[in-house]
Amino acid sequence: MIDAKEYLKKMSAELDGPIKSYIGDEEPKNLMDSSKQYPYAGGKRMRPAMAVACCRAVGGDASKAVPLAVAIEYIHNFTLIHDDLMDGDEVRRGMPTIHVGYGMPTAILAGDALFAKAFQIICGLDIPAERMRDVLDYVSTAVWDLARGQQMDVNNERHIVTEDVYIETIKLKTSVLFAAAAAGGAIVGGADEKTVRAINEYALELGLGFQMFDDYLGIAGDSAKTGKSVGNDIRKGKCTCMVTHAIRSIKDPAVLEEFKSILGNIDATDEQCIRAKQIMQDAGSIDYALDLARKKVDIAISKIEDLPESEDKEFMIALAKYAINREV
Amino acid sequence: MIDAKEYLKKMSAELDGPIKSYIGDEEPKNLMDSSKQYPYAGGKRMRPAMAVACCRAVGGDASKAVPLAVAIEYIHNFTLIHDDLMDGDEVRRGMPTIHVGYGMPTAILAGDALFAKAFQIICGLDIPAERMRDVLDYVSTAVWDLARGQQMDVNNERHIVTEDVYIETIKLKTSVLFAAAAAGGAIVGGADEKTVRAINEYALELGLGFQMFDDYLGIAGDSAKTGKSVGNDIRKGKCTCMVTHAIRSIKDPAVLEEFKSILGNIDATDEQCIRAKQIMQDAGSIDYALDLARKKVDIAISKIEDLPESEDKEFMIALAKYAINREV
Repeated sequence: MIDAKEYLKKMSAELDGPIKSYIGDEEPKNLMDSSKQYPYAGGKRMRPAMAVACCRAVGGDASKAVPLAVAIEYIHNFTLIHDDLMDGDEVRRGMPTIHVGYGMPTAILAGDALFAKAFQIICGLDIPAERMRDVLDYVSTAVWDLARGQQMDVNNERHIVTEDVYIETIKLKTSVLFAAAAAGGAIVGGADEKTVRAINEYALELGLGFQMFDDYLGIAGDSAKTGKSVGNDIRKGKCTCMVTHAIRSIKDPAVLEEFKSILGNIDATDEQCIRAKQIMQDAGSIDYALDLARKKVDIAISKIEDLPESEDKEFMIALAKYAINREV
Repeated sequence: MIDAKEYLKKMSAELDGPIKSYIGDEEPKNLMDSSKQYPYAGGKRMRPAMAVACCRAVGGDASKAVPLAVAIEYIHNFTLIHDDLMDGDEVRRGMPTIHVGYGMPTAILAGDALFAKAFQIICGLDIPAERMRDVLDYVSTAVWDLARGQQMDVNNERHIVTEDVYIETIKLKTSVLFAAAAAGGAIVGGADEKTVRAINEYALELGLGFQMFDDYLGIAGDSAKTGKSVGNDIRKGKCTCMVTHAIRSIKDPAVLEEFKSILGNIDATDEQCIRAKQIMQDAGSIDYALDLARKKVDIAISKIEDLPESEDKEFMIALAKYAINREV
C-alpha cells in the first residue's frame, strides 16, 4: 500500500522546480517577490500532485501535466493571498502574510498576477487546442465557483446555516479546485469523457472529505501542529457540519442556549471554547462529522474503481484516505 | 467622417444586453450584485467597442466578437473594483464603490469573480480552438501585465521616475488591455498574423495616447466633468509625463524646489495645487504632454493604414482621435 504522505513528498520535490520556474525577474520586483512567496514556501502540494497522478493514471505523459499542476498550485495560492487579506491573518507558513509584508495593494495585485499567470500557463499546455479548451473550461469555472464559495463562507460567519448550505459552500470553496486539477490532469492525459467525469467526481468527493476533516482539525486537532487554537473557529462562529449537527441534536434547551451564546462570540474565553467543544462532543457532532468525511472519501474511491490498476491509481486512493487522516 | 462619440454610444447600446447577460442569479446574491454593479452601470465602453470594430474591420462576423467584448469589459471592471479598493476611492459612476457598498472581502471576490467569468466566456467563444488559444494568449498576458502596471503605478506614487518608466507603466496598466481587445477582435474575425500584429500595435499606441490624455485631464480638465479636482493627482504625487517634463525643464532652482515641495504633499492647499499646475504650464509641460499624446495617436493610425477601407476602419481612426479629444 502506498504511503500517501511519502509519495506526496516525493512528488512535491519533483514539482518544486517547475513551480519556481514560471515567474521570472520582470519588473516590478515587489510584485514578483510577493507573488512567489506562497508557492515557493511549499505546502502539501495535494492539488498539483493530483493533476500529475490523474494524468498518469489514465496512461498519459506526466510531463505534459506538470505545467497544469503549476497553474493549479498558483490558483490555490492566489486564493490564499486574497483569503489571508480578507481574514486579516498575519502569518502563513512561518512568514508574514503578503498584506502584512507588502501592504494591501500588493496583496491584491500579487493574487491577481498569480491568477493571470495560471491562465497563461494553461494557454501554453503542450496538448491539442481542443483539449486545452476543455481544461480551460474546468479551471475557469472552478475559479468562478471558488469566488462564490468564499463569499458564501464570509456570509455564513456568525450565521447558522443548514448542512446542505454548508456542503454547497465547501464544495465551491474547496472541492471544485481539486476537481479541476484531477479532471484537467485526466484531460491532459488523453482520457475519454466518461473517465474525465469519473475522475472529476472522485476529486469533488475527496475535496468534501478534505474540508470536513479540516474543519474537524480546527476543533479537535493538535493546535501545536495545526497552528490554530481550538477557539479560532468557535469565536469566528464558523458554521461547520459539527455546528449544524449540534444545533439540531442538542436536546436540552439550556445547553443549546449556552452553546449558541459561545459560538461567534469574539470575546469568548478559552474555557468557554473548550466547553463549546465538549457540548459538540457530547451531542455526537464531532463523531458525526468524522463519519460524514469518511463516507465522502468512500464515495470518492468508488468513483475510480473502473480505472486500470496502477501505482497512480493506488496513490489516488491513498490520497483520498490521507485527506481525512492527517495531523495538519 | 464618423463621430466617434456617437458611434460609441450606438455600439454601447448594442453591447448593453450582452454585457448584462453573462452573470445570472446564482448564489450568493451579494457576490452577483456586486459583480454586476460596475459593468451594468455603463462607462465609455471603448474596449468592447474596439473588439467588435476590429473583428468587423478584418471582414469578420461581429456577433462572434461580442462575447469577447463582454469578457474584456469584465476584465476592465475587475481592475476598477480592485483599483478603487487599493486607492480608497468611495464613488464611481455616481454610486458607492464596491468595498464601500459591500465591504472589502466582497470587493476582492467580486473582482476575482469577474476575472474568472471573463475566461469562462473566452473559453466558450464560437471559433476554432486554435484561434481561441491565440485570443487566450493575448488576454491572459494582458492581465499579467496589467497587475505589473498597477503595481508600478503604486510604486511610482511620490517618486519621480523617468519618462521611460512612466511610459512603460501606462503601457502595462492601460495599453495592453486595449491591445488585447483589438488583437482579440481581429483574431476572432479571422485576420492573418501580420494584420493581428498591426492592429495590436495600433491599440497599444492608442492606449498610450489615451492614458497621457487622461493624466492631462486630471490636471487641466474641467473638474465638474471629470469628477476629479485639480489637486487630486498633485497631492498624490502622481508621476505623469507632465511632471517628468517639468522636473527636467524647470531652470530656476527656487521654482523647482517649490514645485517639488507641493508635489506629493497630501496637505497641499488648493492654491498650492493651482500654483503647481501654473509651474508646469510655464515650463511647457502640459503642451508637451498633449503633443506626446498626439504623436502616439498618429502612430496608432499609421499602423492600420493597410487595412481595407470600411466604416469600422474609419471608426478605429476616429476612436484614436477621440482618445485625446474628450472632456471625460
